[in-house]
Amino acid sequence: MAATDFNLDLTRHERIGLDEAVLASAKTAAQLAAILDRAQNLGIGLLVTRLDPGKFDALPDAHKARLDYEPLSRTGVFLRPHQLRSAPPVAIVSAGTGDLPTAREAAHTLEYYGQPYREYADVGVAGLWRLLERIDEIRLAPAVIVVAGMDAALISVVGGLVPGSVIGVPTSVGYGVAAEGMAALHAALASCAPGVVVVNIDNGYGAACAALRITNSLGARARESAPRKSALPAS
Amino acid sequence: MAATDFNLDLTRHERIGLDEAVLASAKTAAQLAAILDRAQNLGIGLLVTRLDPGKFDALPDAHKARLDYEPLSRTGVFLRPHQLRSAPPVAIVSAGTGDLPTAREAAHTLEYYGQPYREYADVGVAGLWRLLERIDEIRLAPAVIVVAGMDAALISVVGGLVPGSVIGVPTSVGYGVAAEGMAALHAALASCAPGVVVVNIDNGYGAACAALRITNSLGARARESAPRKSALPAS
Amino acid sequence: MAATDFNLDLTRHERIGLDEAVLASAKTAAQLAAILDRAQNLGIGLLVTRLDPGKFDALPDAHKARLDYEPLSRTGVFLRPHQLRSAPPVAIVSAGTGDLPTAREAAHTLEYYGQPYREYADVGVAGLWRLLERIDEIRLAPAVIVVAGMDAALISVVGGLVPGSVIGVPTSVGYGVAAEGMAALHAALASCAPGVVVVNIDNGYGAACAALRITNSLGARARESAPRKSALPAS
Amino acid sequence: MAATDFNLDLTRHERIGLDEAVLASAKTAAQLAAILDRAQNLGIGLLVTRLDPGKFDALPDAHKARLDYEPLSRTGVFLRPHQLRSAPPVAIVSAGTGDLPTAREAAHTLEYYGQPYREYADVGVAGLWRLLERIDEIRLAPAVIVVAGMDAALISVVGGLVPGSVIGVPTSVGYGVAAEGMAALHAALASCAPGVVVVNIDNGYGAACAALRITNSLGARARESAPRKSALPAS
Amino acid sequence: MAATDFNLDLTRHERIGLDEAVLASAKTAAQLAAILDRAQNLGIGLLVTRLDPGKFDALPDAHKARLDYEPLSRTGVFLRPHQLRSAPPVAIVSAGTGDLPTAREAAHTLEYYGQPYREYADVGVAGLWRLLERIDEIRLAPAVIVVAGMDAALISVVGGLVPGSVIGVPTSVGYGVAAEGMAALHAALASCAPGVVVVNIDNGYGAACAALRITNSLGARARESAPRKSALPAS
Amino acid sequence: MAATDFNLDLTRHERIGLDEAVLASAKTAAQLAAILDRAQNLGIGLLVTRLDPGKFDALPDAHKARLDYEPLSRTGVFLRPHQLRSAPPVAIVSAGTGDLPTAREAAHTLEYYGQPYREYADVGVAGLWRLLERIDEIRLAPAVIVVAGMDAALISVVGGLVPGSVIGVPTSVGYGVAAEGMAALHAALASCAPGVVVVNIDNGYGAACAALRITNSLGARARESAPRKSALPAS
Amino acid sequence: MAATDFNLDLTRHERIGLDEAVLASAKTAAQLAAILDRAQNLGIGLLVTRLDPGKFDALPDAHKARLDYEPLSRTGVFLRPHQLRSAPPVAIVSAGTGDLPTAREAAHTLEYYGQPYREYADVGVAGLWRLLERIDEIRLAPAVIVVAGMDAALISVVGGLVPGSVIGVPTSVGYGVAAEGMAALHAALASCAPGVVVVNIDNGYGAACAALRITNSLGARARESAPRKSALPAS
Amino acid sequence: MAATDFNLDLTRHERIGLDEAVLASAKTAAQLAAILDRAQNLGIGLLVTRLDPGKFDALPDAHKARLDYEPLSRTGVFLRPHQLRSAPPVAIVSAGTGDLPTAREAAHTLEYYGQPYREYADVGVAGLWRLLERIDEIRLAPAVIVVAGMDAALISVVGGLVPGSVIGVPTSVGYGVAAEGMAALHAALASCAPGVVVVNIDNGYGAACAALRITNSLGARARESAPRKSALPAS
Repeated sequence: MAATDFNLDLTRHERIGLDEAVLASAKTAAQLAAILDRAQNLGIGLLVTRLDPGKFDALPDAHKARLDYEPLSRTGVFLRPHQLRSAPPVAIVSAGTGDLPTAREAAHTLEYYGQPYREYADVGVAGLWRLLERIDEIRLAPAVIVVAGMDAALISVVGGLVPGSVIGVPTSVGYGVAAEGMAALHAALASCAPGVVVVNIDNGYGAACAALRITNSLGARARESAPRKSALPAS
Repeated sequence: MAATDFNLDLTRHERIGLDEAVLASAKTAAQLAAILDRAQNLGIGLLVTRLDPGKFDALPDAHKARLDYEPLSRTGVFLRPHQLRSAPPVAIVSAGTGDLPTAREAAHTLEYYGQPYREYADVGVAGLWRLLERIDEIRLAPAVIVVAGMDAALISVVGGLVPGSVIGVPTSVGYGVAAEGMAALHAALASCAPGVVVVNIDNGYGAACAALRITNSLGARARESAPRKSALPAS
Repeated sequence: MAATDFNLDLTRHERIGLDEAVLASAKTAAQLAAILDRAQNLGIGLLVTRLDPGKFDALPDAHKARLDYEPLSRTGVFLRPHQLRSAPPVAIVSAGTGDLPTAREAAHTLEYYGQPYREYADVGVAGLWRLLERIDEIRLAPAVIVVAGMDAALISVVGGLVPGSVIGVPTSVGYGVAAEGMAALHAALASCAPGVVVVNIDNGYGAACAALRITNSLGARARESAPRKSALPAS
Repeated sequence: MAATDFNLDLTRHERIGLDEAVLASAKTAAQLAAILDRAQNLGIGLLVTRLDPGKFDALPDAHKARLDYEPLSRTGVFLRPHQLRSAPPVAIVSAGTGDLPTAREAAHTLEYYGQPYREYADVGVAGLWRLLERIDEIRLAPAVIVVAGMDAALISVVGGLVPGSVIGVPTSVGYGVAAEGMAALHAALASCAPGVVVVNIDNGYGAACAALRITNSLGARARESAPRKSALPAS
Repeated sequence: MAATDFNLDLTRHERIGLDEAVLASAKTAAQLAAILDRAQNLGIGLLVTRLDPGKFDALPDAHKARLDYEPLSRTGVFLRPHQLRSAPPVAIVSAGTGDLPTAREAAHTLEYYGQPYREYADVGVAGLWRLLERIDEIRLAPAVIVVAGMDAALISVVGGLVPGSVIGVPTSVGYGVAAEGMAALHAALASCAPGVVVVNIDNGYGAACAALRITNSLGARARESAPRKSALPAS
Repeated sequence: MAATDFNLDLTRHERIGLDEAVLASAKTAAQLAAILDRAQNLGIGLLVTRLDPGKFDALPDAHKARLDYEPLSRTGVFLRPHQLRSAPPVAIVSAGTGDLPTAREAAHTLEYYGQPYREYADVGVAGLWRLLERIDEIRLAPAVIVVAGMDAALISVVGGLVPGSVIGVPTSVGYGVAAEGMAALHAALASCAPGVVVVNIDNGYGAACAALRITNSLGARARESAPRKSALPAS
Repeated sequence: MAATDFNLDLTRHERIGLDEAVLASAKTAAQLAAILDRAQNLGIGLLVTRLDPGKFDALPDAHKARLDYEPLSRTGVFLRPHQLRSAPPVAIVSAGTGDLPTAREAAHTLEYYGQPYREYADVGVAGLWRLLERIDEIRLAPAVIVVAGMDAALISVVGGLVPGSVIGVPTSVGYGVAAEGMAALHAALASCAPGVVVVNIDNGYGAACAALRITNSLGARARESAPRKSALPAS
Repeated sequence: MAATDFNLDLTRHERIGLDEAVLASAKTAAQLAAILDRAQNLGIGLLVTRLDPGKFDALPDAHKARLDYEPLSRTGVFLRPHQLRSAPPVAIVSAGTGDLPTAREAAHTLEYYGQPYREYADVGVAGLWRLLERIDEIRLAPAVIVVAGMDAALISVVGGLVPGSVIGVPTSVGYGVAAEGMAALHAALASCAPGVVVVNIDNGYGAACAALRITNSLGARARESAPRKSALPAS
């Protein structure tokens, strides 16, 4: 792969408060290695998502050693450039065990940016008491990431009970009409609870970024260091 | 329309415990009038569904006078051949005002057969307390018809709380991804609550028939007068 | 996997008359092992569905020894907490050999709960006489589970011939327009036979649970021991 | 409309044994009138399909007078160029009253070509005895056109009972998942009965043409007067 | 319509900081009138969305007089219970003239709650300079609602240029593959810009509610008066 | 597998002139072996379709030795019960090399029944002269099976040039919008050529059966030995 | 409508060689009138597409008088700012009478820019000789716009016969699986002829713009006056 | 494979200025080897696309040695029959690293024909400055191939900035709603930029052929040596 084949967006954080991340599923191991080399040369951190164990294993050993990798969520972190924020924790609520990989992708993304969070796992509506036992704590979060597949009913139920931002993440858990997450996606978008927003199927990373856009606006630090430069380079 | 264009299934009740009903949306007013004439000559009752007000108005006055018609649910009853049963009531639970036409179609169908029922309207999960206030009563029904559009989350929530049969009826309420009820249908079929069954979109009639198949098995009268004849005529 | 990653719904049977089951396809072998450990510690039975032979093999030997596993239907039973009921048998009717895995999933589920059943295999409508030969027996069942892929015509034909509940299970058998069961699902939901209900594609487990909700209402034992507690824990 | 806007395919009958027909739904009343003028000048017959009553009314009176029009099937015939054939009748079998417009479109098309046919209406599988009573007669036809909407189960059932060609015509009758005939189409194409062929939704005209291609091969006249010229004009 | 047919969720604002709104498209004029009567008796404000001019005209005159109605966005306001907030304005960015009804629905919703906003209309990417001229001002908003149909490319472009929350609203503008907004919806959900969230097609109301959940967390007033009561009534 | 798990339809040929065939893709190797055992015991022939090389290899050696298997089309023949007919050959026309497996499945099916045929391979419309060179010969066939993927334009072009029956077989050749054959299927069903009929995607077997239904009616032998018995067993 | 609600892209021609056009279907009559006022004040020409006769009639008389409007294609021209080019004509080939509105939209667009063109109407492949008679002339065009609905087979056939650019325009002509043009679109995109390009369904305007991009590059005038300014305004 | 199983279209270049290419994904290794043998015997060049590394490895060594193969784009070239043209370069613009295989397929196709090109990789709109930095150079190309997955927003943005032909190639990069490239395809076809044309998902080969049709018309050589023979062989 020639050096001109990729073009790291190094001014992204300055522009929008988020770093570029690497979607590993769309890249070969050779392309990933070249990108990690570049990051190392520049001394910048990188979040790698959708990195299958097989592709991780195919990376050069030196890269594997430097990558903090978790197979369940398929995320890897290459250097951690951000310090822990003192901010109210984001809530990550998930319906079943099968939704954990996506919930963990969101958790790792928040962690990369130093954003505190709390996880509430396996609280799907088939056993509603599991959610209701913990709802008063969840209601304190400025943003609630709700991860659910199949009917995604948990997203609507949470949307009707909490005042903060509710970011629905439909997952591909299920079979038949679940259709790789399309049923959950459509249910979440058609939610009867007002102001629920949605990201792509299994997109824990995107949900975390959406929560970060909110906490960036919210937190004192974000207010102080808000991007001030122009959105585009002077031509 | 020639007399040979329709073929009333007069042995259906004997075979399956349900009468033939007339789906008016697939018929012209002239075809409907011919079918009602035949029913009158035979002295049999008929349930007419999906009868738009415009088509009702286009019927001959004599037929209109004999048809007990309700525009909201678009159902009409032509004679009532069945007596009131002494049976535990079926519950009809609906999420919002827009789901009422379908809920009422179910109610009229049960009424035609003399089956008692109770309605619980506008108890969607965006305001969950509305359902929880009444759930202990709903749990007593042998069959619960749950009518909901958009995300159809109410179907899953009820499915996780009641022990009787839960018959989900997705409705075409909503817009965009609601897709004329497809989102609700898929969510209901992918429900995380076990043993929830589903009928076609807006099919209040079918849900009521499914409930009747259950109460037919359940009730003493059904046990006594169960269809005994062969399923097919002797050849 | 941390202990907080799953949350067994131990009051589900008390609430709805059905135990929580484990959908193995959405879980890793490690997550499954943790759940089985918990069940063993609690001394409760568990039904495991969609357990591929590969994942079964990856379980610890001790768990494998305790799991009564059948590869065709991919179901496993871990302890059997329910006694055989004296109840009329549920009928399980299937169209072709390819539908057997789903029909057997339904059968294993009924067996787990002690519910008697009878199977009628390979009676698809391309050779209609195979069904008609046995229809008088099938008509005696309070609930008939009909398992069929491709055109799912068997579901409608049975729906027009039997008085009990008809629970259609479309299967993913077929190719091209069969579309992994979507053609069968849509045909079943659009059935011309009244009161047919449908569950998700290949969902033999769900169909059996729906039949159990019916026989729970029906049977004397169910009537005596009906859940009486509130649907939600006191807050 | 300029004369060059349409191009009647006057050699089609010579090539394939069928005349060009006019699909009125894709044309304005002015375009239709121009085509009928041309046909009149050439002295050729024309079959007009999908002609809504409103568009028929908008035609010039002279054309209306010459067009033999039936509103239920929306077909019109402008001159009848073909004599009655002495051939075994094609069977047209339809499931319900709502399928009659399509069945009649097929009937009018056969009539235009002088092909004998017999209609079997309202014999859907919800009341299977209606079909079984008449199946021995239907089995004598060289081609059976089966018209059915919703689950289209009738197409499979007939396909398993008759030896001649079975041409399935799914119809747009139904609602919800019936999806304007897509459920019926997919079920017909996925039929478990071997050698069933299918045409587009509501395409009674096409089914009749397919039957004519068969009876053209079959009949003595067709054998004698088979198209002999080259398929393309000499260049 | 009986009084029990609807169930206003009067504790919703206390629970989630948003009032119940009325989706008029799913209700008859008679149902709407009954709901407005109830609101008037209770002295509460109501936001009515998707109210077609024809249905507005069919309301009783007294209701029409009290409803502040705008036909372009089809929104009506019945009393205004919220005062103007002193909060940074939300940005509403729209691609073309056809997207204005949806953008205005968002604007009216924010206005109902007293939330300041600024509109940036007709800045679609076919003429990218129109957006770039105003991007530095847009970047100051804590939440940016981006309304776009067809390819919805504007949502991704804005997502790559601003640091605040980006709420994409796909619209049904377009034809053919635009598919009533499905192309725009899918493009927005698949956006290459990180942390973009999406609501249902044409759902300007939902986007505004999502922005309000953010500004509720953000603003001083929201921080002071955050809902403190339990999410569910004491049972 | 218990003996009751399958139910060979031994009267099918008597009823419809076609034998039951075995769709191997929906069966395990063990189920196939049991079915072949039964066929051997009964001394009947069997056509096996969709038999992947891997599954063929997994059969017992004795079965493999008796099965005449071709991997390209994945068909196997177990005994050949039918003699060569003296009948005009069916034409099998295919667009590209990728369509050959399906064309060959049709060829093997015709061969099993002794029906003569001729193949015209790789004559797709991108090089139209390849078809036009051979069209005069193709026009002589009573039935033309046209096998094409991607745009399936060959089906329409042949439909406009030949007088016999045209049976379109869309194939799953192609990528992207070709969508596993859905584009070809829809194009074939929407063909502008009159009287073209269609079978499921990649269904060479079904197309051949449809051709056999035609040649059964056509041929002298078929006329003499037409099924005369009733369609159903006496009950 | 406030003046800030639209934003004419006045530098578009300078940037890309094409003027902004107005898609009337997404605008109210009042919005259209405001845009035409602006154009008149600026003295610029405008092409208006998808202008239904009803909306045209609702415009102020002064605008109607100035708009050169054709109802069949629903296009209107407000001033003609471009002179006739001396360039080889673009070919516009269409399959049937129902495709004429789209073909004419393309023709009016080319006319607005002074680009010569020739139309070849009603040459669909069901009567292939109609195309082959004229193909040698069509082959001389640098760009061929092919307009076809239903199976869109004409697009592939032309793509295999001409050396210039082939721009396929699928149309919404047809019914059932034609699915408002989706079948034609998918067939065109899956074309077996190499290098065929496609625009949105019924998008005659877009096809003409694509042809203009080609002839702009091709013609001497285009070469001389090629846009030289920067794509974006200096910031 | 018999010699009659394929039919190389040797007059294609004479007819349309492009050679036949081989889509390897639809062929077995044995079929590929037979085609390469034929090409070698005829001494003609061949471009092979979609050749997976596994299938390449399965070719006979002699063929592997003669095939210039690149695994990333899966293209192979067997002899290069065309000389380098002196023509302005085509631009190939791609959004991300995952789009490179498709962009390279286009590049290899242009190279096979001797057409100069320039690549602009990883310039997606999430970091818009990357495109704007290079847009003035891109604007000089007569044809711009834009390769983008997910939201495909880059296609619209380029379409609004360059005057030459814009050929959009949606790719299957992405997950969830990206739906194997359908979201990108629909967004590209619904582009708000005028005159953008589109090819099938991942079809870099087709996009290059479309560019060649343009540069064939454009270039002096193409003008001199334009195909003059008839499109069809004399019959």
